[in-house]
Amino acid sequence: MPVLLAPEQAPTLPGLLQAANPTGLDSSIVESDEPMPRIRGLGSLLSAGPSEISFLANPRLQGQLAQCRAAAVILTPETWQSLKADRPPFRVVLCSQPYLMYALLAQWFDRHRIQNLAKGIHPSAVIAASAQVAPDASIGPNCVIEDGARVGPGTRLGPGCIIGAGSSVGADGLLHAGVTLYHGVHLGDRVIVHSGAVLGADGFGFAPYPGSEPGAWAKIAQLGGVQVGNDVEIGANTTIDRGALEDTVIGNGVKLDNQIMVAHNVRIGDHTAMAACVGIAGSTVIGARCTIGGAAMLSGHIVLGDDVHVSGGTAITANVEKPGRYTGVYPFDEHVGWQRNAAVLGQLSQLRKRLRALEKHDK
Amino acid sequence: MPVLLAPEQAPTLPGLLQAANPTGLDSSIVESDEPMPRIRGLGSLLSAGPSEISFLANPRLQGQLAQCRAAAVILTPETWQSLKADRPPFRVVLCSQPYLMYALLAQWFDRHRIQNLAKGIHPSAVIAASAQVAPDASIGPNCVIEDGARVGPGTRLGPGCIIGAGSSVGADGLLHAGVTLYHGVHLGDRVIVHSGAVLGADGFGFAPYPGSEPGAWAKIAQLGGVQVGNDVEIGANTTIDRGALEDTVIGNGVKLDNQIMVAHNVRIGDHTAMAACVGIAGSTVIGARCTIGGAAMLSGHIVLGDDVHVSGGTAITANVEKPGRYTGVYPFDEHVGWQRNAAVLGQLSQLRKRLRALEKHDK
Amino acid sequence: MPVLLAPEQAPTLPGLLQAANPTGLDSSIVESDEPMPRIRGLGSLLSAGPSEISFLANPRLQGQLAQCRAAAVILTPETWQSLKADRPPFRVVLCSQPYLMYALLAQWFDRHRIQNLAKGIHPSAVIAASAQVAPDASIGPNCVIEDGARVGPGTRLGPGCIIGAGSSVGADGLLHAGVTLYHGVHLGDRVIVHSGAVLGADGFGFAPYPGSEPGAWAKIAQLGGVQVGNDVEIGANTTIDRGALEDTVIGNGVKLDNQIMVAHNVRIGDHTAMAACVGIAGSTVIGARCTIGGAAMLSGHIVLGDDVHVSGGTAITANVEKPGRYTGVYPFDEHVGWQRNAAVLGQLSQLRKRLRALEKHDK
Repeated sequence: MPVLLAPEQAPTLPGLLQAANPTGLDSSIVESDEPMPRIRGLGSLLSAGPSEISFLANPRLQGQLAQCRAAAVILTPETWQSLKADRPPFRVVLCSQPYLMYALLAQWFDRHRIQNLAKGIHPSAVIAASAQVAPDASIGPNCVIEDGARVGPGTRLGPGCIIGAGSSVGADGLLHAGVTLYHGVHLGDRVIVHSGAVLGADGFGFAPYPGSEPGAWAKIAQLGGVQVGNDVEIGANTTIDRGALEDTVIGNGVKLDNQIMVAHNVRIGDHTAMAACVGIAGSTVIGARCTIGGAAMLSGHIVLGDDVHVSGGTAITANVEKPGRYTGVYPFDEHVGWQRNAAVLGQLSQLRKRLRALEKHDK
Repeated sequence: MPVLLAPEQAPTLPGLLQAANPTGLDSSIVESDEPMPRIRGLGSLLSAGPSEISFLANPRLQGQLAQCRAAAVILTPETWQSLKADRPPFRVVLCSQPYLMYALLAQWFDRHRIQNLAKGIHPSAVIAASAQVAPDASIGPNCVIEDGARVGPGTRLGPGCIIGAGSSVGADGLLHAGVTLYHGVHLGDRVIVHSGAVLGADGFGFAPYPGSEPGAWAKIAQLGGVQVGNDVEIGANTTIDRGALEDTVIGNGVKLDNQIMVAHNVRIGDHTAMAACVGIAGSTVIGARCTIGGAAMLSGHIVLGDDVHVSGGTAITANVEKPGRYTGVYPFDEHVGWQRNAAVLGQLSQLRKRLRALEKHDK
Repeated sequence: MPVLLAPEQAPTLPGLLQAANPTGLDSSIVESDEPMPRIRGLGSLLSAGPSEISFLANPRLQGQLAQCRAAAVILTPETWQSLKADRPPFRVVLCSQPYLMYALLAQWFDRHRIQNLAKGIHPSAVIAASAQVAPDASIGPNCVIEDGARVGPGTRLGPGCIIGAGSSVGADGLLHAGVTLYHGVHLGDRVIVHSGAVLGADGFGFAPYPGSEPGAWAKIAQLGGVQVGNDVEIGANTTIDRGALEDTVIGNGVKLDNQIMVAHNVRIGDHTAMAACVGIAGSTVIGARCTIGGAAMLSGHIVLGDDVHVSGGTAITANVEKPGRYTGVYPFDEHVGWQRNAAVLGQLSQLRKRLRALEKHDK
């Protein structure tokens, strides 16, 4: 559960709305005789306590407002109209996009937590003399920053991060504990990387090596790097391999969940988002604003255009040019039913032939 | 292969059976003129040497008893009756559940190994002044224990573990090398976590951010935490994300294999076990005593009842209330056969129509 | 993009070809009046600059030769004949296998980079008194080498690697940052392991524990180890579990990509290669020279023979003895089309019955 701010650290409601909203998203507080509350935290309609703010983004939850104990609730003007409540037990904040306002408020509370963490370079960090760390960057215990690596202003590295030789992290980044960047990996500004993510491991490339034993392989050393744009988030234990000769490229605003595998020379367009456990084979190119559902797989050397949406668990094995949603998932069933029907799959082509024969005969 | 205990450390057979079995599982040693052996290790029927104990849990392996060189073998009374061997070349231990007795013996040998590891707090560990580490906890090299974190009595942290601010590990836990707990993650007692597991990374939540570029996202900072019950085991490189506002919850006795992904706000009921590579999307609720096969995928916002068993590789995309086994896997075939039949899948609905037309005509 | 060598470090073309090719692969430089270039790097036909070498391995790219600015290009004698270019703007290297020559050259450039990294044992490494580290091994910052572990000559450990008690790494190995070996894990010579890989975590084994709560499990402690052969490569965040009683075994020359899961007691034959995200359940045995496509899944306790090739995304649920290619992937479609056809899957068995009835009637 979220930790509440100490009362003396808690902003007033208008102070919070102003501080949390640098984007100019509309918001107004409905007038009331009550004094302005101080807001110590953020919760759901049912869990928020009397010093927290909540929000109604999903109209189906409107019934929960009756039990809401929050100090303030964000509503659309339309919902507020429909409520016809003269004096609700909470302060009402009107906003055309309560879900976006919730996102901004949650960011504010998390930023507040992060700003209270230790700053500076922990004495146990191992930083090469030729590395460049911005004066206001924070480097956690046991970090290793190798020759020629750079860490930008405002960036924070959790414990045990490794920045390989010549790699760089831009400004205002956040690398959680235990992130590994090999050499030749470059991150833009405001990039968030979660624990256990590995950027720049060797792509999987081997040439048959006939001079050796039958079946043996010669490694193709991977000489390319990884380029990651601005405002990217990379999930825990996700891996992004370095390119063979050119770079693997992640566009601006891309969001990758946990345990995603991005193979060498893949290119991902701006603002594309992928849920967990997606695997993308080598040299595949993905457009902008795509969404890829969890555990989807993309074959290598294919192209997905912009605005392509892949359902979870789907294997995309060929180019997809047309925007839209694509699916290929075996529907689950009770085991016995599945067994009965799956056994027929291996005869489908035969069944079609038999059907054709009947049709011919029938004419 | 298992390492044998030094002869002087090896317990006698009755001593071992007593020490390994705190649960009162029945066991008795069949009388014999031979002196009681000392037991230096545990092996399978074919690999156990003359100072090791073995067991017969699978009746199909009974034929291997003839070649068994072990010092002692655990059998059911029924098997022993059926053997009619007057003087087998090994000591016979009778037990109604040899497989469970094997589990207990294996635990004993592993505990013995662990008890001989270095104890105390390694000088390279970085422990915040406000953290609370129980006097008999063991903290490995390069661990980082942040502000307000707690480590319970008898708990052991391997090298390089990170316990985030305010997080806690209960009593008698075992975190292998390189486990990462973010802030706000709480583990019960007797929890085992394997290397590379990450608990408490941000759930994958974004709101469309129309004020920015087309397709851009605003991060929804994840303010919830993770709650893990007692007697839980979490596999290597598994990730359990923190909740958005409430906590992600793992029940008592849950067993998670490697490379499992548990998204934010998931709840897993007591004693549910999941094989490797399972992915569970956000807010899904799983009942008690379920088993989820390897590489199965569960969609978000669905509910699985108690005692639901999902086959490996199956995508569960809707609620499952009824206990039982559920499957949805594409049967594999030689590539050419698969190709021939898979091509017909895209015409199934048409084929059904054509069949209906024939049936109508036929009447 | 690859970093170019400084001009004074760059070898001449014949020097490079000789140094990079210890295997005796044929190569000859076509005579020319121009002086021999020094080669500072390696690039693709379109990206290589005037101090780099390139290669033509895929005949479909032959058209790119016209724009190639490289200092030298590796061609087959056949391609060179067909070009009929008297004086190409680059030096021509003739080789019967340009792709293999490219692999060898890339290895040379990467070896050159590695040889310039820091050598020796970093003072922050924690090495047990009873561990044996070869004099010319390199141990990075924050590595932990436990009791009785051994690191062979010429082996390099990146930052934060952990070598568990009694484990061993052979000669000329390369463990990138953050590799974890539990106790009882043995690697052969020339093994490469990428960041975040975990070898030797407990296999997933539990016995029902009826004396406790309904559904509870007793852990089967995993007493076996892991054996890895020579010339193996293991990808980032891949996990290979220790055996229950015997060892998990990875043969010589095996290549495993990222995020692969190898469960306990699996055995993988020589020179088998697996793409990312493959999962292999316990006790499965895989032959030599197999290839397993990305995200394929193999059930437990099955056997795959030699030279079996599994397509990506395929679930292999039974023994496969015959060499060949095997596939089982649900073909993707536009969502609406998939929905229409997938709905019929649950009636396949019925459809077959109805077809039979018509056929009977038709006779």
